[in-house]
Amino acid sequence: MHSFELLVNQFEEKFSKRHFPDQPTTLYDPNEYFLRLGGKRIRPVLCLMGNELFDNLHKDVWHVAAALELFHNFTLIHDDIMDKAPLRRGTQTVHEKFGINTALLSGDVMMIAAYENLNKVQSAFLHSILKLFNETAKKVCEGQQLDMDFEKIENISFEQYVNMIELKTSVMLAASLKMGAILGGASERNQNLLYEFGKKLGIAFQIQDDYLDAFGDPQKVGKQVGGDIFANKKTFLLIKALEIADENQKAILVNNQQTDIAGVNEILSIFKKCKVDEWALQLKNKYMQEAFAHLQEIAVLEVRKKHLVELANNLLDRKF
Amino acid sequence: MHSFELLVNQFEEKFSKRHFPDQPTTLYDPNEYFLRLGGKRIRPVLCLMGNELFDNLHKDVWHVAAALELFHNFTLIHDDIMDKAPLRRGTQTVHEKFGINTALLSGDVMMIAAYENLNKVQSAFLHSILKLFNETAKKVCEGQQLDMDFEKIENISFEQYVNMIELKTSVMLAASLKMGAILGGASERNQNLLYEFGKKLGIAFQIQDDYLDAFGDPQKVGKQVGGDIFANKKTFLLIKALEIADENQKAILVNNQQTDIAGVNEILSIFKKCKVDEWALQLKNKYMQEAFAHLQEIAVLEVRKKHLVELANNLLDRKF
Repeated sequence: MHSFELLVNQFEEKFSKRHFPDQPTTLYDPNEYFLRLGGKRIRPVLCLMGNELFDNLHKDVWHVAAALELFHNFTLIHDDIMDKAPLRRGTQTVHEKFGINTALLSGDVMMIAAYENLNKVQSAFLHSILKLFNETAKKVCEGQQLDMDFEKIENISFEQYVNMIELKTSVMLAASLKMGAILGGASERNQNLLYEFGKKLGIAFQIQDDYLDAFGDPQKVGKQVGGDIFANKKTFLLIKALEIADENQKAILVNNQQTDIAGVNEILSIFKKCKVDEWALQLKNKYMQEAFAHLQEIAVLEVRKKHLVELANNLLDRKF
Repeated sequence: MHSFELLVNQFEEKFSKRHFPDQPTTLYDPNEYFLRLGGKRIRPVLCLMGNELFDNLHKDVWHVAAALELFHNFTLIHDDIMDKAPLRRGTQTVHEKFGINTALLSGDVMMIAAYENLNKVQSAFLHSILKLFNETAKKVCEGQQLDMDFEKIENISFEQYVNMIELKTSVMLAASLKMGAILGGASERNQNLLYEFGKKLGIAFQIQDDYLDAFGDPQKVGKQVGGDIFANKKTFLLIKALEIADENQKAILVNNQQTDIAGVNEILSIFKKCKVDEWALQLKNKYMQEAFAHLQEIAVLEVRKKHLVELANNLLDRKF
């Protein structure tokens, strides 16, 4: 069993090669550019850890891990187009640097590259890995669509928002763990418990993401300050604040989209007055505890769970 | 063995169901809308015919055929965004009707649906079908990128243009036939001959497409008259005309993008003066003959090839 640091290093070593042909450069260079921006590689490492929870690392797990990371990068490229995001990881997004059409097509071919990696999995596992991958990939698209739909709807309930986050973010984290578990020969019950662990962890992670977008250090987050507010995005913070705020505050929140820093700061000060920053941190802890309860139930020796627990704690305590 | 009409009807019967979940409607209704616009279903029928060339229809061929049609529709949705095309099959394109972001995401999920269908193929064939599918899908994206790149380059050689068309159009027709052949248990030599047949057929088909865009009946083609000229697209006609035209004509052709009908008509009249309309029809016949020479070589009884020959002749004599 390996720590996050060891696994991420091993993954990086294998992943930091060229993933695409040389020609046409206009199609493939944008993808190589984007992959070199790095990333936390959470999905591949979850896949590796899901695998190691039940057995030694399976030789095919590296292909699945690569597929997960490529798919994740595909979603980022396309999401950035849809969100008109200028920056990703502190650097120009693909559509900003190369134009929308190329970003669209480079994203498409990134998804195909994910499937190329999946197709390296041996026959015994190929059907079940592909099935889970496809189901999850569709859900990720559904989540992104709901996220966009919610921008145009004033009243989104907490439940609707959690459902969207599950689709957009959590299920792929959960599936990453489960794919590793499948290759590790885990029982169906253990697979599903691990999946639920990943789902709750994903929600906790999103709560933190929403929190950091508003209250994090922009230098460390590598994105615009209050990017969600600029983009008129629903967040855990906004949804809760709309529940609590008085009429005057609500009028400002409803017109959430701000075009300057002063407007963003006004929203942030309402968030603080409504104490949704504190509420968000408590909610994150609640989901983390639920996640750990599922992990607890998985019938393997406790010692095998150590690195997953560490990873979850590290991910959710990050300050950047 | 079945005729094109019979196979297309059988395919339509199986394919004309809902392909996507009900919710979220904002994501899936655009895809259902687009699939209901119909289409010639050439790729699935080629797959079925490639299969019947060697054996009775394999039960899995329907899944592969559906995957090919879904992938084709995914490319159309995304290409229409990139080309800013207002109409497809005489009707509003997805991005025109539902917005660019939804069209982007609906296209993404259409591609995933293609892979869902591929994953229904039995284990014995899954790896080889997926491998060919992935390789071909990447080439299609490469072709689309080159097509866009060529809009910005004045001098494109005939060879460069043919290479782009092979990637963008021909290889998927060729692969459709070959996937059917794989399921039919064809020898590698026969598979490859069939692939070459499809590739040449695809080029002939594109020559005709370019011809019809300029000289076809717009009512029957279901697209803008001279859409390629409006979009400043390279075509077989333009590339040949640039070779032949005098300096005055060339100056007009080089500034190929026209914004009104008068400009389009001026380009068309130069095409006619240079006789590239006649040249294009001769070139189409040359590629058709090369295609048929490959088909000839395939070691199965001639009678099995009958419907493929008929299909090729029908496709390439179409007036619309």
